[in-house]
Amino acid sequence: MFRSKLQNFSNYSTPVFEYIVKADANENLLDYPEDLEVLITDVLKKNVRNLCFYPEINSQPLKQELAKFYGLKEENFIIGNGSDQIIQLIIQAACDKDDFIFTLYPSFAMYKITAELFDVNHSFLDITQNWEINADEVIEKISQNDKIKVIFIDTPNNPTGVALEYEKLKLIAESFPERLIVIDNAYGEYCDINYLDLALQEKNVILLKTFSKIGFAGIRCGYAIANEKVIENLHKVKPPYNVNILSQQIAISLLRNLDKLKSNIDLIKSERVRMTKCLEDFYFVLPSQANFISIVDDEIDYIFDYLKSKKILVKKFDIGMKKLLRITLGKPKDNDIILESLINYKRGK
Amino acid sequence: MFRSKLQNFSNYSTPVFEYIVKADANENLLDYPEDLEVLITDVLKKNVRNLCFYPEINSQPLKQELAKFYGLKEENFIIGNGSDQIIQLIIQAACDKDDFIFTLYPSFAMYKITAELFDVNHSFLDITQNWEINADEVIEKISQNDKIKVIFIDTPNNPTGVALEYEKLKLIAESFPERLIVIDNAYGEYCDINYLDLALQEKNVILLKTFSKIGFAGIRCGYAIANEKVIENLHKVKPPYNVNILSQQIAISLLRNLDKLKSNIDLIKSERVRMTKCLEDFYFVLPSQANFISIVDDEIDYIFDYLKSKKILVKKFDIGMKKLLRITLGKPKDNDIILESLINYKRGK
Repeated sequence: MFRSKLQNFSNYSTPVFEYIVKADANENLLDYPEDLEVLITDVLKKNVRNLCFYPEINSQPLKQELAKFYGLKEENFIIGNGSDQIIQLIIQAACDKDDFIFTLYPSFAMYKITAELFDVNHSFLDITQNWEINADEVIEKISQNDKIKVIFIDTPNNPTGVALEYEKLKLIAESFPERLIVIDNAYGEYCDINYLDLALQEKNVILLKTFSKIGFAGIRCGYAIANEKVIENLHKVKPPYNVNILSQQIAISLLRNLDKLKSNIDLIKSERVRMTKCLEDFYFVLPSQANFISIVDDEIDYIFDYLKSKKILVKKFDIGMKKLLRITLGKPKDNDIILESLINYKRGK
Repeated sequence: MFRSKLQNFSNYSTPVFEYIVKADANENLLDYPEDLEVLITDVLKKNVRNLCFYPEINSQPLKQELAKFYGLKEENFIIGNGSDQIIQLIIQAACDKDDFIFTLYPSFAMYKITAELFDVNHSFLDITQNWEINADEVIEKISQNDKIKVIFIDTPNNPTGVALEYEKLKLIAESFPERLIVIDNAYGEYCDINYLDLALQEKNVILLKTFSKIGFAGIRCGYAIANEKVIENLHKVKPPYNVNILSQQIAISLLRNLDKLKSNIDLIKSERVRMTKCLEDFYFVLPSQANFISIVDDEIDYIFDYLKSKKILVKKFDIGMKKLLRITLGKPKDNDIILESLINYKRGK
């Protein structure tokens, strides 16, 4: 009754155990400022009586607010049930069966998972040697394969946290004017580089953004910014009514009050400096521009188990010959618990 | 940059104009009972602080509540961002490119639209002659085409409102044990026939349900009930974190308090009797088991425009040689406005 290839598929899941510190999913778990909490509660209360209606079919109210926020047009935006959904829409809109997407390796897992679902192949450039991205190598690799239709670059990269220089990304985008370049900027608020201009200047660039990493993973709302023609094509494959009323209204309220989240974002950035500094004497810590830090170590499996024994939930990655532990930055007291355990591990305690 | 077939696609949209009566989208627009409104507001308030977390990856909390509600197992359920999403998952899981889905004609538009998106073809049986469903004809039509992998039957049908007898549906399901039969029961709460046993007894049957038609279209939450093996396969193609935290929590609260919606559902059912009776002297009204009534008339375009001039928003359908007007039932005072206009139209006023 089902496609034969489904035999090789498994339901995407991620291990969870009882924890005292949750540092596995790149959420921002700092408490909301009280006035923001009041605002959001008000938004929810006001919309209870609207729940009987379908949301606007293409999330127009949220697009209008985004247009205002960025000084762009509504037609420059598409809204997704998480930016995950927009990744899917991009592949659906651009790739025929047996086409390819290109990604870095490692990068956000959903690019490859989504491509496989649509019978689309996956080409990648291994960046595990020194965890840096060589634009020339990227360009060479893509040039060799005409069937690559979409190039996904997550910057800051997940799970390394490393950001790609603006000029390198511009070079890649300009090298392939007939292919879509998706800049997945999920961690953008924690990064010093702003890629928005690239999406505005280049006709083949899509910038992906989300509310998930700045404290609102629970609303499942992401969006893409690109030129009108690209956005129009993505809408053609978008399911109607894809974002519910409450998530839209919360997102609108967040855009109007983003300054209230600044202290939470700044705290994570300063914790990143502190944690990196403390851990560098013991571990190889990648230079992160995201709300997490990643360490590369041969003993990651043991470290993960050690942290698990301390009820600390982090995420580990097997990447070819390398192993990586991704640690989401959280409240300073939680970061301290992680720090202590990681240092104790190396000290053999 | 995009697939060539996208040229033939347009963004699904539906005409909206300024209205005094909204009767176009099969929402239930009756006011919620006050105690239910309080409960839902409470649920939302309690979950504001959880918005920083991703929802459970497969909506397990809601599946647990559904299992309790139906006396089944969690493994019998999959949750979607609206049942629309589950329609997509079913096609993705069952159909290779160039396979077929089967539907009645007319039926819910998203079956065909979704199939096209996945390069899946569409076979259908025209029921416009007398708007009844002949099971033998359905079986004959499907038997002729091995490539039909999924059979979608919406019952009550949208846009006719006509429900298919249980025994006929059972016969269809039993005739094709190797193909998926999707019983789309979106309007089930308004219908006298309960198809749940079919989904429990037959290994190839999926029952689709939604909160959209009983007053909660804005949360975008639907679910499917089927045997564990079917559900497992659908999960393989389901995007992670597909339903946000608030919609899940509202759905859980609704399942626990469904009795509080009974009066709203009953009122619509009695309005259906009243409206049908009043209109039958002037129009051919289909025997509806849903929260809408549909009239078939050669002058539908004029009637639609006439209602539009009165700021009444309904939905019209061109179905082959026939034309149909679908009128969502609402508050009695709104139904009265529609009734008066429809009768005035025929009286030539």
